[in-house]
Amino acid sequence: MFEKRLQTLRTRFEGLGVDTVWIIQPENRRYLSGFKATDGQLTESSGSLLISLDRALLLTDPRYTAQAEQEACGFEVITYREGVVNALPELFDRLHIRKLGFEAAYLIWELHQKALEKASQHAPAIALVPLSSLVEDLRETKETQEVEALSTSAQLMSAVLTQVIDELRPGQAERDVAWRIETLIREHGADGAAFPPIVASGPNGALPHAVPSDRTLEEGEPIILDVGAMVDGYCSDMSRTVFLGEPMADFKRVYMIVREAQVAAMESIRPGMKTADADSIAREIITNAGFGDFFGHSLGHGVGLATHESPAVGPLKPKVLRDGMVFTIEPGIYLPGKGGVRLEQMVTLEDGKVRILTGNNNFYSF
Amino acid sequence: MFEKRLQTLRTRFEGLGVDTVWIIQPENRRYLSGFKATDGQLTESSGSLLISLDRALLLTDPRYTAQAEQEACGFEVITYREGVVNALPELFDRLHIRKLGFEAAYLIWELHQKALEKASQHAPAIALVPLSSLVEDLRETKETQEVEALSTSAQLMSAVLTQVIDELRPGQAERDVAWRIETLIREHGADGAAFPPIVASGPNGALPHAVPSDRTLEEGEPIILDVGAMVDGYCSDMSRTVFLGEPMADFKRVYMIVREAQVAAMESIRPGMKTADADSIAREIITNAGFGDFFGHSLGHGVGLATHESPAVGPLKPKVLRDGMVFTIEPGIYLPGKGGVRLEQMVTLEDGKVRILTGNNNFYSF
Repeated sequence: MFEKRLQTLRTRFEGLGVDTVWIIQPENRRYLSGFKATDGQLTESSGSLLISLDRALLLTDPRYTAQAEQEACGFEVITYREGVVNALPELFDRLHIRKLGFEAAYLIWELHQKALEKASQHAPAIALVPLSSLVEDLRETKETQEVEALSTSAQLMSAVLTQVIDELRPGQAERDVAWRIETLIREHGADGAAFPPIVASGPNGALPHAVPSDRTLEEGEPIILDVGAMVDGYCSDMSRTVFLGEPMADFKRVYMIVREAQVAAMESIRPGMKTADADSIAREIITNAGFGDFFGHSLGHGVGLATHESPAVGPLKPKVLRDGMVFTIEPGIYLPGKGGVRLEQMVTLEDGKVRILTGNNNFYSF
Repeated sequence: MFEKRLQTLRTRFEGLGVDTVWIIQPENRRYLSGFKATDGQLTESSGSLLISLDRALLLTDPRYTAQAEQEACGFEVITYREGVVNALPELFDRLHIRKLGFEAAYLIWELHQKALEKASQHAPAIALVPLSSLVEDLRETKETQEVEALSTSAQLMSAVLTQVIDELRPGQAERDVAWRIETLIREHGADGAAFPPIVASGPNGALPHAVPSDRTLEEGEPIILDVGAMVDGYCSDMSRTVFLGEPMADFKRVYMIVREAQVAAMESIRPGMKTADADSIAREIITNAGFGDFFGHSLGHGVGLATHESPAVGPLKPKVLRDGMVFTIEPGIYLPGKGGVRLEQMVTLEDGKVRILTGNNNFYSF
């Protein structure tokens, strides 16, 4: 599996005129090598890969050497003690590097600057070549076993969410519900939550990225639950909106509009469709109902080793959807000061149409 | 409080010859503005700050506008829809920017490149100036209320750890103990764990960054617990090493050496001392006992809004310790294939000496 990914990668970067690539983005690193370590903080790397046409190296520090040797089969593990940049010059020679591609959207400016110094000092000088989406593009289309892993993660999450919604009562605090979700995710055997669960009740639901608070659930208000699990590294991401008792004025209507937008998208999206057109299917329904200004985000995003990955399913970056992609369909309407409704399913494109991974019981029954 | 921090910041960056700074690092952003949002992924910013000598702006996208307006008092919130870089040109004019400082150790290469394009196209052209540790240096010395917040976080963590250690039994799996720790952290009212708890038993303890596994605890082996909580954004970080039953051959001795090294450091470290000298106090004791090669990390690190922050208390980056700094003192000895002992307290310098924030019952009683 890893060998096949490396071969595809090599074909791609050779076509871009570089002889070696330096991979530091944690999910890209895991995708290519199997090395599972995460980065403790954003600027605390647990390692990087140097992949040439005939060699595959994993560079790390002594804290991770043993783990790297165990997990990254097929990779030669190099341990550095004074930062990865100081390990580069020797490797420039050993791998006969002339043009080194790096992840332009991930490498920190200062690290690039230091690597550039080493590359310029080398004789002959080595060119650093910025690459965009090299591995991200590979990761967009999932292999069969990846779709299965994502399906497992989605099903686990869906079962947990159903249980939590059954238990919801007026008076519970958002943060207690969020914690219950995290607990059940772990008890169901996941690695953990893919991201901190969102439980946003009443006016808090108007913030798409609300943080669970001490606010208690009240009857009639919309309650958004946006949750994800990680299972063997693969993420899920789904949202439901529910009510305790009779919905407040207007919110039943708002709910039905979002639902209509989501169903239309799930029924109409096909491989070959542009992401902007997929987004439009849902957005037009919401706009025509008069709520276009209150749907301030894209229709969805890819899901895989990261919760948010390519393709973005929105109006901006144009991409074509293909069989094997896994992404969310999550229209929403957010009314400042009042509340929000978001419905999010995780789907894959299979045999030319949408297959829902998060189950079919996503809707609230009025 | 934020106003005072901004004033100190302005004095500093004016002295560096820049008229405005662009702050994107999440903890720096929170420290200066009060905006609590975290970044979902390194490449998914929830906002950045533009601070000139007389203006303070928070730039974010629509998902975070409401939260930013609520939390970032004194900041003017600017909402962008097509990425922060496209919002810059108008702000170059509005703030009369000529020399814009950026965080060299955090800004991604590609984002820098795009900002550089906009800056070059501007008339007159704007200089982008790399800055190192501008806000990190401010954050090194804690204000009184920050020390109190860190103390609260440390005390909560210490109480939880004491309870978990009381409950330890042979046969428990490392990952179940880790989950118990996370659960209690939340039940005690923290925001959550500051980092995934480390529970490393027997040979696993020889890896300083071991991930809790299915391995079960056995009698006599050293068990390292390295844990931290986050309370109102402030982190704690502490480690204890314990045994179930009589310690295995040599590990009582190893434990006593690490303990001696830690006590010596806690008793001798003073404001005015260089970090390298602080490190040496503990390192010499371990080296003299013959285990110098088995203490492969620094003595400690600063703790605050981030678990790991400046100052590094080790041999490499020279700094002077000062009253108001909060950092860890965590000597360790790691014997490959056998196990490890690490003892970590979180301390502050106050009135010229060390005050321990994580409590006094850190040692195992043989």
